[in-house]
Amino acid sequence: MRKASFADMNCSVAQSLEIIGEWWTLLILRDCFLGFRRFDDFVERLGISRNILTNRLDTLVGGGLLERRPYDEARNRYDYVLTDKGRALWPVLTALRQWGDEWILGAGNEPILLEHRDHGHTTTAHMACDVCGEALDARSVRAVPGPGATP
Amino acid sequence: MRKASFADMNCSVAQSLEIIGEWWTLLILRDCFLGFRRFDDFVERLGISRNILTNRLDTLVGGGLLERRPYDEARNRYDYVLTDKGRALWPVLTALRQWGDEWILGAGNEPILLEHRDHGHTTTAHMACDVCGEALDARSVRAVPGPGATP
Repeated sequence: MRKASFADMNCSVAQSLEIIGEWWTLLILRDCFLGFRRFDDFVERLGISRNILTNRLDTLVGGGLLERRPYDEARNRYDYVLTDKGRALWPVLTALRQWGDEWILGAGNEPILLEHRDHGHTTTAHMACDVCGEALDARSVRAVPGPGATP
Repeated sequence: MRKASFADMNCSVAQSLEIIGEWWTLLILRDCFLGFRRFDDFVERLGISRNILTNRLDTLVGGGLLERRPYDEARNRYDYVLTDKGRALWPVLTALRQWGDEWILGAGNEPILLEHRDHGHTTTAHMACDVCGEALDARSVRAVPGPGATP
C-alpha cells in the first residue's frame, strides 16, 4: 500500500524514498562510503539480521546503487560496491550527518569529520548555487514548477 | 528493537534517522517547506491515514522540528510550522530531490525547480567546502575521526 502511493507521486523525494527510505538502507550506504563492502562487515557493524540485510542489499543492487562483485566464486561470495548512482547519494548522507551533528549530538561530539583531500583541511559542506556560487538555504530559494510538473 | 539499536549507534546519520527515518516523515517536511501547515492539507496531499499522520506529527513536534500553533483554539486546531531545527533539514531534502531528479525521473522531468530569490535564476544546489568554497563530492573528501569518536 505504501509502495503504491509513493510510486504514484510525481515527486523526486517520494521516488527516492522508494529506494532508500528504509531505515537500514542509508546505514548500509553509509558503511559503503566508509569503505566496507562485505556482507559480514555489514552484519557486524549494523547488528542487522541476515534476512533483512539480504533483502536491503537486493533492493540496492536492483535499484542500481550497489554492484555485486564476486571475490570468491566457488563459495558464492560478493563484494558490494557503490555504483555512480549510489555514490551520487553522498550529498544526502553528508547533509543528514551534519544535521545530526549540529542538532542532535551537538558541536564537539562529532564522531566523524570530513577532510578535504587535496588541501588537507577539515571541513563541513554547505549547499551552494550552481549558477552564482552563493551559499543556499531554505530562505534563499523558492520552489517553482519544473518541466515535469503535473498540470 | 530497531529504535534501541539505532539510538545506541555513535553516528549522526543513525541518530537523525531516529527522528526522520520513517517514510512519511520526510514527505510531511517536504510539504512544510512548500508552505503547507495544516493537518487536512497533509492528509489530502499525502493520502496518509489520520492515525499515522497524528503519530508522525507528534514525533516531529516532540523532536523539535515542527511547532504547533493554534489557529482555532475553540476547536483545538493547529498549524504545524517548521522550527529552525526543522528548517535546517533543507539540504537533506534538496539533495534527495535532486538525486531523484537526476537518477530516477531523469533530466527534463523535474516536477519542481529552485529559483534563487535574490537573483531570479533557476538553479540546482551542490555541496561546497566551508573552508575553500570548492565543490565537494564523495571522492574529494575522506572521513576522519572527530572529537566524539568512539575510542
